[in-house]
Amino acid sequence: MLLTQALHTAAQLYPEHPATLCHGRERTYRQALQRVARLAAGLRNHGLEEGGRIAILALNSDRYQEGLLACWWAGGVVNPVNIRWSAGEITYSLEDSGARVLIVDDQHLPLLSQVLASLRHPPLLVYAGEGATPSGMLGFEALIAESAPIADAGAGGESLAVILYTGGTTGRPKGVMLSHGNLLSGVLMRLADLPPVAGRVGLSVAPLFHIAGLASAYARILTGASNIYLPLFDALQVLETVQRERANEILLVPTMLQALLDHPRFAEFDLSSLERVLYGASPISAALLDRAVAGLPSAGFVHLYGLTENGGQISANPPCNHKADGGLSRSVGRPTLGQWVRIVDEQGHEVPRNTVGELIARGPSVMQGYWNRPEDTAATLRDGWLYTGDAAYMDDSGHLFVVDRIKDMIISGGENIYSAEVENVLARHPAVALCAVIGVPHDAWGEAVYAVVTLKPGRQTDAEGLIRHCREALAAYKCPKSIEFRESLPLSGAGKILKRDLREPYWQSVRQGASA
Amino acid sequence: MLLTQALHTAAQLYPEHPATLCHGRERTYRQALQRVARLAAGLRNHGLEEGGRIAILALNSDRYQEGLLACWWAGGVVNPVNIRWSAGEITYSLEDSGARVLIVDDQHLPLLSQVLASLRHPPLLVYAGEGATPSGMLGFEALIAESAPIADAGAGGESLAVILYTGGTTGRPKGVMLSHGNLLSGVLMRLADLPPVAGRVGLSVAPLFHIAGLASAYARILTGASNIYLPLFDALQVLETVQRERANEILLVPTMLQALLDHPRFAEFDLSSLERVLYGASPISAALLDRAVAGLPSAGFVHLYGLTENGGQISANPPCNHKADGGLSRSVGRPTLGQWVRIVDEQGHEVPRNTVGELIARGPSVMQGYWNRPEDTAATLRDGWLYTGDAAYMDDSGHLFVVDRIKDMIISGGENIYSAEVENVLARHPAVALCAVIGVPHDAWGEAVYAVVTLKPGRQTDAEGLIRHCREALAAYKCPKSIEFRESLPLSGAGKILKRDLREPYWQSVRQGASA
Repeated sequence: MLLTQALHTAAQLYPEHPATLCHGRERTYRQALQRVARLAAGLRNHGLEEGGRIAILALNSDRYQEGLLACWWAGGVVNPVNIRWSAGEITYSLEDSGARVLIVDDQHLPLLSQVLASLRHPPLLVYAGEGATPSGMLGFEALIAESAPIADAGAGGESLAVILYTGGTTGRPKGVMLSHGNLLSGVLMRLADLPPVAGRVGLSVAPLFHIAGLASAYARILTGASNIYLPLFDALQVLETVQRERANEILLVPTMLQALLDHPRFAEFDLSSLERVLYGASPISAALLDRAVAGLPSAGFVHLYGLTENGGQISANPPCNHKADGGLSRSVGRPTLGQWVRIVDEQGHEVPRNTVGELIARGPSVMQGYWNRPEDTAATLRDGWLYTGDAAYMDDSGHLFVVDRIKDMIISGGENIYSAEVENVLARHPAVALCAVIGVPHDAWGEAVYAVVTLKPGRQTDAEGLIRHCREALAAYKCPKSIEFRESLPLSGAGKILKRDLREPYWQSVRQGASA
Repeated sequence: MLLTQALHTAAQLYPEHPATLCHGRERTYRQALQRVARLAAGLRNHGLEEGGRIAILALNSDRYQEGLLACWWAGGVVNPVNIRWSAGEITYSLEDSGARVLIVDDQHLPLLSQVLASLRHPPLLVYAGEGATPSGMLGFEALIAESAPIADAGAGGESLAVILYTGGTTGRPKGVMLSHGNLLSGVLMRLADLPPVAGRVGLSVAPLFHIAGLASAYARILTGASNIYLPLFDALQVLETVQRERANEILLVPTMLQALLDHPRFAEFDLSSLERVLYGASPISAALLDRAVAGLPSAGFVHLYGLTENGGQISANPPCNHKADGGLSRSVGRPTLGQWVRIVDEQGHEVPRNTVGELIARGPSVMQGYWNRPEDTAATLRDGWLYTGDAAYMDDSGHLFVVDRIKDMIISGGENIYSAEVENVLARHPAVALCAVIGVPHDAWGEAVYAVVTLKPGRQTDAEGLIRHCREALAAYKCPKSIEFRESLPLSGAGKILKRDLREPYWQSVRQGASA
């Protein structure tokens, strides 16, 4: 189970099919194979050893894909760095992973001196930008041009393929270790559940440092399809590119999907080539889903649910469940083929159907553990099971419903309240752009339901109006007791709302009070 | 990657769906899980250890499936014994695998005393028949009834799952070791290529001791579908069962497909429920394929190509290639997703497209090796590649064409002749039932092309007529120089014609002459 196997086979079966389209450049699979074999040679010539780590700090591009494949070809391990991180966080992840090579693009050059200043072992720098190679760096294209191709090192199976840092929402980032077998079997399980679309052109706009973007780009390589790369999500550019390249598949996080639908020129574009819209990474509101299904009638919508720790795979909710009137559109689907899922209580015992508990999962895509963190690994992987931290239930038909992160659940007056349920109701209000529901300290109830909201441009409402809106759909104890309006919400590198940051100020004073 | 994961998940998602139908008995997945957990307990209570081998010597049945799953549940390894073997061959395989338990059915009781007489360590005997349990044996149903269910031992990944003895066509049987990961990933790769049929009822008539039957029965468990078991292939029973149970999928070897189409009552049955007919295990003649496509118009035909050594998976030729006028109907398809295939010369170097060489394969389903045969393993697994012994070429579109076994190729007057090509032409003659083309010694040409033929009942032809028929489609040097008519041809346990047995008498005299 080698990840490079996909490239070898695509170059064999579809040599003239484009592997990548980016910045107006098109590279066929035949070209991609040659470039990867040369780039791998260049990396080895400059001292990369088998098992050595290569960090990539760059926006999505064809070169990012080539960098991933070349690292695996050379027997190395990739650390795809979160592009939303500060210099300090980047330094932490390079130090922690022990990266010996850093591939960097134009957008991240400005951060470099600050990152390098605090690194004990400065890595070899490879410049993958579009301009002239800065001094002190190796050029990505020069490495390819100068190096004679080498044979694939053949790393695979349980060998480490990537270290993906997660934990933007909880404490210090942890490096999730995924082997070649984890990533490849996870993608195979998804494809067994969701056969590839007939058209063979995917738009890769979800960032490659995130498992969802990485796995879906890899699925296209495995099936010999094309990846169109856009450096960053830009709604207009996505609309133009889908129309121009007749893209058939796209993966979006809900905030991206919302931005597309909200774009004032949305209706001008011919998006009928879209056969499938994959979404995931965070829950989607019912209101947004309804708009999306209506706005993109040619597309089948699929909700992918998974964690980095499980190769991004746990379940998929297929298009047939996305009916406006169907309760199953709120489900994350049944477990994908080969995934073994249970809902358990705090003692790890399976709970009855329709009862909320923690979702645990087992299967070949489950990570090897957290890099250099045996205690975190032991807490998350228990008896072969991955403890996801997600609160969920399974209905009688085997469909899974994720109701919240366990740590985002609010216990108010002895009642469990799922923040996601309240957020879904708030998001249906026509004035609400983004919202987050958290528990804040309350003397009598333990926690009180508190909402933080941003409004759509030009729209207005007040706390009273929103609470009244909630009361129409929710029991009184679930409704926010107070609502705060802000200009923006703090987002993680993967586009998730950082509830920890929202909660922190309220609980800090409680803790300080307690320790005083 | 546990094989029992499929049962756990099917029982969770589809508890009331039938797992098996056999002898008028129906067991749901809920029942199957309970029975397997109890049977596993019974086997452990009677001394089966983790990694211990259980042999099953039985016709296909629901109990066979339960025996497989219970063995894996208990952490054991299954040796599914070839039901066409003699007592001596059975003894050899039990001895070689070190089986400590033997599950046996009514049909194989008569062989038992002879098998046991020459075994050094007689195994625990479990009777899985339909009558009263003979003395000295444990009853399959009694074991289930008496044992309290145990937890799944959790064996998986690289742990050994089955030892499948092959080599009916060449020398002493060799035990192919497939791990849990090999079998499960092989089935996942096939499902990624060929999504499950919409109907969820498969007819399992291909024997479970053969990888093709085993893998397709397992694919149904993984997708929560039903397996209908018939003890032996009987054309009329197959026709009746497909009609009665509205079966959607069936896997057949070409000789079975031919027997169905030849059955005098074929046209009486409603076989319109069949969505897919999988065939494989040996090549199919163009004549038979044409009849099959015409005779079963509702079914998509899929040619599966693989070896036991590769978990049965290498490639699949999908229904769209099975057009009467299309050259691709002769292909075994493109490599299935995740399979890496090359065609190489005798030095292991890749040959150009459309050039015949040896097909080698690599991927997660490739066996761990041959049981206790490191030399055979080293000869077959080289640098991570499985050397299949199949002569094949890949066309410009990446489709594979298997032309012969390398050892069945005939070299006559310096020309390569593929026995399968000649057999295909012979099989199109209306009087020919079965045929085999071999090379026999020839003083001037090295080898001469020689055909052995059985005729259809009531049909007649002679050697001259058949040779004339061949000349119409083949170059003269490929046509048989002589033809022998027989009542029957020697078949292996998997239904393959034993060409070795046909060749042997001719070459024996040459070898004796050479050594004299």
